[in-house]
Amino acid sequence: MDLHILDHKLRVTSISKSGLVNFTHPLIKLIFLRNRTRCKFFSLTETPENYTVVLDEEGFKELQPSEHLQVESSIWLPLNVVSNGNASSSSQAVGVTKIAKSVIAPLAQQHVSVFMLSTYQTDFILVREKDLSVVISTLEEEEFNIYKEVGGEFLPVQCQDVTNGLQKNGKEAIHPTVHPVLIPKNQFCVMSLDPDTLPSIATTLIDVLFYSSSLKDDPQSSSSQDLDCINFFSFSLIDGYISLVMDTEAQRRFPADLLFTSSSGELWRMVRIGGQPLGFDECGIVAQISQPLADSDISAYYISTFSFDHALVPEEDIVSVTDMLQHQRKEPATS
Amino acid sequence: MDLHILDHKLRVTSISKSGLVNFTHPLIKLIFLRNRTRCKFFSLTETPENYTVVLDEEGFKELQPSEHLQVESSIWLPLNVVSNGNASSSSQAVGVTKIAKSVIAPLAQQHVSVFMLSTYQTDFILVREKDLSVVISTLEEEEFNIYKEVGGEFLPVQCQDVTNGLQKNGKEAIHPTVHPVLIPKNQFCVMSLDPDTLPSIATTLIDVLFYSSSLKDDPQSSSSQDLDCINFFSFSLIDGYISLVMDTEAQRRFPADLLFTSSSGELWRMVRIGGQPLGFDECGIVAQISQPLADSDISAYYISTFSFDHALVPEEDIVSVTDMLQHQRKEPATS
Repeated sequence: MDLHILDHKLRVTSISKSGLVNFTHPLIKLIFLRNRTRCKFFSLTETPENYTVVLDEEGFKELQPSEHLQVESSIWLPLNVVSNGNASSSSQAVGVTKIAKSVIAPLAQQHVSVFMLSTYQTDFILVREKDLSVVISTLEEEEFNIYKEVGGEFLPVQCQDVTNGLQKNGKEAIHPTVHPVLIPKNQFCVMSLDPDTLPSIATTLIDVLFYSSSLKDDPQSSSSQDLDCINFFSFSLIDGYISLVMDTEAQRRFPADLLFTSSSGELWRMVRIGGQPLGFDECGIVAQISQPLADSDISAYYISTFSFDHALVPEEDIVSVTDMLQHQRKEPATS
Repeated sequence: MDLHILDHKLRVTSISKSGLVNFTHPLIKLIFLRNRTRCKFFSLTETPENYTVVLDEEGFKELQPSEHLQVESSIWLPLNVVSNGNASSSSQAVGVTKIAKSVIAPLAQQHVSVFMLSTYQTDFILVREKDLSVVISTLEEEEFNIYKEVGGEFLPVQCQDVTNGLQKNGKEAIHPTVHPVLIPKNQFCVMSLDPDTLPSIATTLIDVLFYSSSLKDDPQSSSSQDLDCINFFSFSLIDGYISLVMDTEAQRRFPADLLFTSSSGELWRMVRIGGQPLGFDECGIVAQISQPLADSDISAYYISTFSFDHALVPEEDIVSVTDMLQHQRKEPATS
């Protein structure tokens, strides 16, 4: 398997619900006006708590400092696993499940925090720039061929003796906190769109992204932890590819002929991880859920946000996933 | 001729160039998301100085107070002249020319300030609510049948003895200031659009309205009085009808098959009136230019903004209009 270190330096930010109006101008530019920006990596995810915006430095320049904008202090780099034809895995599963054992578990073992961003097209594993050497040495051990994108080309990363001058984070067993999970009732779709047809859905997308929250601006329901349905919508435009994650209620507002999903047209259920906002420093959160999913060969998308993590699993697997998570919570946590 | 007093209470506001980003959220809602607002009268005009926004009280509620928002203190009411079939005029001219002698001159004579807003569909004459009685009595004398829109129906306005308890503003001759004019070189089109196709041009319109100024954010050129071309763009959505006034450079950015103009496809040249911002209290500014145009039977649209007034005359008439205005400036002003 190949691992690509993509040529984007990313910031992870959060815009408060009430502050979104102040960021409408730059966000609409980043989403719809590709000719006006050099931003190549943009992702916006609405959750009940806030809007998580992940974007490269060109995009980040568009966001004016504000009391409504929180910025995680690190530079994050997106990694991408590319299967190079001779995949030995017989797994039919997609998403983070495919990389759970080869990438996510080893990085958790090395105490490397990851921020996951699954899209229709691929799964981005964001790691802090300062952790890159550890990441490279760890994943070399997993027999990845590692390439770094430089000016659009992928160059092999020189095998570095990272133990020389760099202390690995250690390999003791981890005992991650077992976080509470929430399983809302909405059904989600993971969709894409030809970028040339983005203008055709512009007013609908603007309406959904920037004006729909105000309709349900009931602090009780949006802060409640046991809400039946969750307000979750994710849009990303990365290297020219568009990905949308929305529930079936939002999907009905878009013209049916423009958005496309995988041929199986699967619906997904969400497992939100975290009872309190998770922060960015804890390691092993993705591993905690993706490893058992991999053991059961259950596909999963995974979207981290500023406050919580969100796994999406196939509708038909939600009962077994729920059982699995309950089981995990009863047992003492083991590495 | 019938005069309709439309059922909109309007505010005339101005958003500074640098403040537009703060108003993107409410303006996009008012332009594109008709289901989310009860605003029925909305007009946005970009000039080199600022953005003039005229809107009804439902729309005005969307604009948050800000240092970037100036609001004229009055409530304005839109009047509309409807020819009821037996028009005696043999004039082929359109726009304010048709109403120059019957409406604009008499109101100027009565020292009533007017704010003009020509659209593709019609010409709105905005008058202050407090002037309404003077307006009604003045235009009754011009033999208008006056109707007031109430709940969607037009009811005849009872003949009031307005001299009873109300002093007319006086009928002495007016000697209006002759304002300098600017005649930029752009050619303008006055266009319309089926409201159902508005989503199709959303990204282009958003780009033109909210992102184009920054490209030419050269204070020298935008404040210069002898600029060759003027940055002028007007969009209105009034009672479900869309009107757009833009120069041919902006027009080329829109799909040619969606915007339509009158069958003659005329191009218009602009006469901007005022060397210094005009304010709202001076009367007779519209009359000063529309009366000689009417004498020569030259069509004209007329768009007032927060700072200046703008007349649009047919391209082929610009030489004679220029001569006429130079002549007017040489002669002592007469009533």
